[in-house]
Amino acid sequence: MPAIANPRVIFASVPKGCPVPGEDVVYDETEQIDIENVSLEDGQAIVKLLVLSCDPYMRGRMRDASIKSYTPAFELGKPLTNFGVAEVVRSNNSAYNPGQKLYGFFQFQSYNIITASPGSPPAYKTIGDEDIPVTAWVGAAGMPGKTAVYGMKAYSKAKKGEKIFVTSAYGPVGQLVCQIAKREGLDVLASAGSDKKVEWLRKELGVTAFNYKTESTVEQLQKFGPIDIYWDAVGGEVFDAALGAMNKGGRAIECGMISGYNSSSTYVFKNIMRIVSQELSVNGFIVSSHEAAYVKEFYENVPKTLATGEIKFEEDVYKGLKTVPQAIVDMLKGDNDGKVVISLADN
Amino acid sequence: MPAIANPRVIFASVPKGCPVPGEDVVYDETEQIDIENVSLEDGQAIVKLLVLSCDPYMRGRMRDASIKSYTPAFELGKPLTNFGVAEVVRSNNSAYNPGQKLYGFFQFQSYNIITASPGSPPAYKTIGDEDIPVTAWVGAAGMPGKTAVYGMKAYSKAKKGEKIFVTSAYGPVGQLVCQIAKREGLDVLASAGSDKKVEWLRKELGVTAFNYKTESTVEQLQKFGPIDIYWDAVGGEVFDAALGAMNKGGRAIECGMISGYNSSSTYVFKNIMRIVSQELSVNGFIVSSHEAAYVKEFYENVPKTLATGEIKFEEDVYKGLKTVPQAIVDMLKGDNDGKVVISLADN
Repeated sequence: MPAIANPRVIFASVPKGCPVPGEDVVYDETEQIDIENVSLEDGQAIVKLLVLSCDPYMRGRMRDASIKSYTPAFELGKPLTNFGVAEVVRSNNSAYNPGQKLYGFFQFQSYNIITASPGSPPAYKTIGDEDIPVTAWVGAAGMPGKTAVYGMKAYSKAKKGEKIFVTSAYGPVGQLVCQIAKREGLDVLASAGSDKKVEWLRKELGVTAFNYKTESTVEQLQKFGPIDIYWDAVGGEVFDAALGAMNKGGRAIECGMISGYNSSSTYVFKNIMRIVSQELSVNGFIVSSHEAAYVKEFYENVPKTLATGEIKFEEDVYKGLKTVPQAIVDMLKGDNDGKVVISLADN
Repeated sequence: MPAIANPRVIFASVPKGCPVPGEDVVYDETEQIDIENVSLEDGQAIVKLLVLSCDPYMRGRMRDASIKSYTPAFELGKPLTNFGVAEVVRSNNSAYNPGQKLYGFFQFQSYNIITASPGSPPAYKTIGDEDIPVTAWVGAAGMPGKTAVYGMKAYSKAKKGEKIFVTSAYGPVGQLVCQIAKREGLDVLASAGSDKKVEWLRKELGVTAFNYKTESTVEQLQKFGPIDIYWDAVGGEVFDAALGAMNKGGRAIECGMISGYNSSSTYVFKNIMRIVSQELSVNGFIVSSHEAAYVKEFYENVPKTLATGEIKFEEDVYKGLKTVPQAIVDMLKGDNDGKVVISLADN
């Protein structure tokens, strides 16, 4: 078999503000790969991508590499990287057999050559046989799902009857947070950015929900009553509104602050002092720090509840690597319709 | 014995900004009391104040009573209230005998008639016989001391060799925090508002210290190296600097935010996003919420270590009720020289 195209998505330049498709993030077809003849070292395998995930934290990786952060910067001129699912095509590694599906970290390139580090824990997880779409393994059954589950486990201290406010509630993390909260007997207020999303949250999850683009968050919080837990994916003004609405002893779970990702804020916090007066705790966290503590329990429970429909999830499936640059922009602007996944299955 | 003067300090009006002595807080001699003949109900006693405490949180009580907060507003036209030590003069309560010294909450008035609530825990603590000045019972052995001890116990998660940054380090809380931190093997950076205070912190406590009025907090933090714990009495820009200097997993202990007490801030936080990226926890607390958990241990240990000199403390003793209005202003401006206490002992 001759060499074939191995398309990829490249980090071409550091965006100012929102990334520009075709400038900062570029689809490229110049590379080729000869699947049968390319040499594989001991422990290596060639995999073909089936699914890639786009997640908001990727914006933080589109920076000058000299700036330190909690995740490595993307390398200029190299493919993006993120979680995905791939199928083993050819293998020089006894742990990975052709046909097996693996969940893990991949380059945004149709074919990846992966390497197992000897002695270290397996970098890729063989995905289960639950009856869920393969895309779900990067969403509700992947990193976003873990974010919701680990964050609530570690920081919510939820007591039945308490009130929680969930931002980005229609996002892949927020959807799960709402449902975990309901199962723990909490009263849920959810915010999302369109009437359609709000409708889904109300109808499918049975929570109180509002459109933050057409309703005042401060007023909705007032109407809902003081909150005990705040799930923050937004930061800035919404975080401040939540601080202003929190009960004594309230817990803020800081999962992300997307409002500041594409701009430098000039917002002046009004309610910071309530951290002292209301004895609030504000807890920032990164999902990977809690992997060891909760991963076993996660895979034992979550894929099963997704398969039975006990836990619901919505996905926005983009088809083909070509769609990645626009998919990222849609996600950062909230124009997506559920968890953004890229399906690379031939179609 | 005829009626004698019973001087007091009255909350006369809600201050705009810093309280004005003689306008917002007024010394008054119009009241009288007949100590021998005034009638006492069952459970009541007359006490004579020996010591009163002035603490920054009192600024928050000088507000319109319609505004809710974590402490009750002072009543307009009535004496201020706060912690103090008083001696029982006459008693109709078997728990309180003449000559006994009591620590508790009193009106800023030479003679108080106190009432024990039947069935509730004793409102006043009989003070011990440790060899410490009576003023210390409202300072290092009182509420400020408890604030330091309880706050560190509940939230520091201190590990030997970690770094802590302590603000208002020369204040009664800060002095103890520095010394607790040293005893736990932490490396201490302390900030205070005068060279004299800095000198005391360096010489007497052996910590790294700087004058925040003449040195840049951001630069001092950079020089000291990333911090693991931040003791915040200040808020605003200094809190932001600390967020910017915190190690992964750092803990901020939010004891107060005095920088905002007399003005509405326009400060724009630059480092809020680090709460997520560095997985920080920010913990607000009010000392009284931890009383039940730690009070026994506190009184068993702290007064003793003050008496032996193992724990040092500095006091700024103002003499007589007349000095209260100015003492409060000095304290809020940081013009005091140690814990502000009012001594009412005849002199």
